[in-house]
Amino acid sequence: MFKKILIANRGEIALRVIRTCKEMGIKTVAVYSTADADSLHVKFADEAVCIGPPPSNLSYLKMSNIISAAEITNADAIHPGYGFLSENADFSRICEEHQIKFIGASAEMISKMGDKATAKATMKAAGVPCVPGSEGILEDFEDCKKTALATGYPVMLKATAGGGGKGMRAVWKEEDLQGAWESARNESKAAFGNDDMYMEKLIEEPRHIEIQIVGDSYGKACHLSERDCSVQRRHQKLTEEVPSPFMTKKLRKEMGEAAVKAAEYIAYEGAGTVEFLVDKHRNFYFMEMNTRIQVEHPITEQVIDFDLIREQILVAAGVKISGKNYEPALHSIECRINAEDPYHDFRPSPGKITTLHAPGGHGVRLDTHVYAGYSIPPNYDSMIAKLITTARTRQEAIDKMKRALDEFVIEGIKTTIPFHRQLMEEPAYVEGNYTTAFMDTFKMKPIKD
Amino acid sequence: MFKKILIANRGEIALRVIRTCKEMGIKTVAVYSTADADSLHVKFADEAVCIGPPPSNLSYLKMSNIISAAEITNADAIHPGYGFLSENADFSRICEEHQIKFIGASAEMISKMGDKATAKATMKAAGVPCVPGSEGILEDFEDCKKTALATGYPVMLKATAGGGGKGMRAVWKEEDLQGAWESARNESKAAFGNDDMYMEKLIEEPRHIEIQIVGDSYGKACHLSERDCSVQRRHQKLTEEVPSPFMTKKLRKEMGEAAVKAAEYIAYEGAGTVEFLVDKHRNFYFMEMNTRIQVEHPITEQVIDFDLIREQILVAAGVKISGKNYEPALHSIECRINAEDPYHDFRPSPGKITTLHAPGGHGVRLDTHVYAGYSIPPNYDSMIAKLITTARTRQEAIDKMKRALDEFVIEGIKTTIPFHRQLMEEPAYVEGNYTTAFMDTFKMKPIKD
Repeated sequence: MFKKILIANRGEIALRVIRTCKEMGIKTVAVYSTADADSLHVKFADEAVCIGPPPSNLSYLKMSNIISAAEITNADAIHPGYGFLSENADFSRICEEHQIKFIGASAEMISKMGDKATAKATMKAAGVPCVPGSEGILEDFEDCKKTALATGYPVMLKATAGGGGKGMRAVWKEEDLQGAWESARNESKAAFGNDDMYMEKLIEEPRHIEIQIVGDSYGKACHLSERDCSVQRRHQKLTEEVPSPFMTKKLRKEMGEAAVKAAEYIAYEGAGTVEFLVDKHRNFYFMEMNTRIQVEHPITEQVIDFDLIREQILVAAGVKISGKNYEPALHSIECRINAEDPYHDFRPSPGKITTLHAPGGHGVRLDTHVYAGYSIPPNYDSMIAKLITTARTRQEAIDKMKRALDEFVIEGIKTTIPFHRQLMEEPAYVEGNYTTAFMDTFKMKPIKD
Repeated sequence: MFKKILIANRGEIALRVIRTCKEMGIKTVAVYSTADADSLHVKFADEAVCIGPPPSNLSYLKMSNIISAAEITNADAIHPGYGFLSENADFSRICEEHQIKFIGASAEMISKMGDKATAKATMKAAGVPCVPGSEGILEDFEDCKKTALATGYPVMLKATAGGGGKGMRAVWKEEDLQGAWESARNESKAAFGNDDMYMEKLIEEPRHIEIQIVGDSYGKACHLSERDCSVQRRHQKLTEEVPSPFMTKKLRKEMGEAAVKAAEYIAYEGAGTVEFLVDKHRNFYFMEMNTRIQVEHPITEQVIDFDLIREQILVAAGVKISGKNYEPALHSIECRINAEDPYHDFRPSPGKITTLHAPGGHGVRLDTHVYAGYSIPPNYDSMIAKLITTARTRQEAIDKMKRALDEFVIEGIKTTIPFHRQLMEEPAYVEGNYTTAFMDTFKMKPIKD
């Protein structure tokens, strides 16, 4: 087992990793930018090394400084957390070159899964369903028509240079295809000076459902059920839950098997997540694979009584996994509490926390690195806490979340607590009837006095 | 279901009950003495009524004031928590007379179980093992000798007037009986002016292991496994755990069945606890029954994913229980954090909490009513928080507790955190090899700098 792990991250995930290391009797090294000198991850680690000024590229992304910190402190492994260098193939390779175990995917694996085209090709080869469509750019309208037939309507025409919905058309039947083809190309030409188009199957009422997997260094993988992450704003997840309210036993089996197949096909080592889009007919399509721990991993831990960080460390140390797949025994919901003002388009609200009262009691878990008196630096991610509730049923977990949000007091800054409080009473959410489009029409109600 | 519940208690248990009521959509009424005006249970309840000055007999024990508070606020039920009026037969009866549902045992049940002799006789009649010994006072030495033979050695001779170990003798074989009989009587006579003696079987290396039961109003009961509460100081529990490290499947089955039999025999309604002494041979003997929720109930909730307060409310509202007995699926430990100085014989340390940082993360639950800025009144119990950790194995739960205790910062007062931190590394505790005598030889190590 490792003797000392350096955590190449900050905030709640750095603290999360330190906690498990402490429980396992492994020494820890925190690294920090000058903006984070007062952080709990610095305080709770056995050792701490300053690795640079506030900007990430000069500190948390500065590989040479982190490697030096590991060498000075004799750390024999590095846990990268999520974000920052967690999916950086170079960093994984450099760690290996320095005989420091990178607790994450190998450089090769990261490269393979980091490039969308390669990832998709790999998944296809492994027999995992991917979103059907054209192989690259459509040659002409004939090719477009042929591809649409092969893909099956409805389809999406997309400009390769596209963005913000420009040069994008949903087409539901063949007679509308030519008009869409021409107008999309014209729009793209005008907007981007390029009218190259490609095609994908249109995913109706898509949900973002991901499967947590763990693979060991002996080629064995298992899945730990799903997480529904469809409630997103600008591709940022806001809340997640397990089980997905859309899940069936059959679908979990199919998706779980696909994810395990994918992991074993590439001999994946460590904790990873296979993200899928699931349409309203419960067809599922590979989206991407994250070769690291996810922000939302605690809800999985809650329903299977499993410490995923411990599992990452064990697997990195060469321990075999049982290979058993896990079904969720309970229902768990996570709300990401961000230092943002939900009443003003979720604009960031850094500053000093003057009062903090944490919720507690039965079925409540809080993962946070902030405390009363802590100043949130403006340099990083705005997430300041993850509030997780767990109960026997979905409704009980929602009721518990409402209660816990009501108890949660953070003063001095604005947070997304009022957003989550409202969300927990939105009929579509309460019914579990939401897709990735949920936030497009969501509006905060006026503040009550 | 009840519309509004008045919580006739204070501190963490009042907050605990309010939390579940909120989750169930039931309105709450807090009552408070003037010493508790700034308490969280007052803040989090929908309504709050001041019921008197700080002394308990003028507030939390003042039945007329509490009944008035319930009537003014139209509460249709009262939850008594633990302590105070929770096992007061008069109060249970008065509630009933006022058509307010007492969420606890009936007056008759409380009287029956509150009197030790009646409780023991009832348990004997139900076929639950009780500590064997004399039926009351021993007539003479002949009676003593005969009773000792029937009871089986070793036995304890006890002075009816005894206390503090005076007039008490352990006797391991018949040839020592006469000497013990005479010296115990002389000692008792000298100390108390009375030499009446009775006899009980000596429980070798006793452990305090209790069974949580729930009975419904249809005569059905079930058990929710055990709690080991052997670590006690002057009969005050300090830490509890489930499963008991001394438990076997067979013993749990036997003790669980005995507890269920006892509950069904008396048609027990609500949550209750049957306390047993278990000797080193795994013989178990009925000690007493608590007709209320226990302080240490959260560890049971953690291992069976069950909200016991919710269960109490449901049963009181006439809901049927499934009758299924529960086995612990995980391991859970509770440490009672008291405002006491463990370095000075656990003397109370009331005062103002200046800084509070709560531990969190995977497997950590905290039930507390205190916060930074809160002043602990000197009038009540010194318990300020219950820290609970839960994991797949006992060792992991201990490791998690050590980590959580290290994170727990309470400044301004002394607490028992250092005691628990040391306890979690005491060899006898770590090995699970402790009895009710454990604290007799426990000594705090000097404070490290």
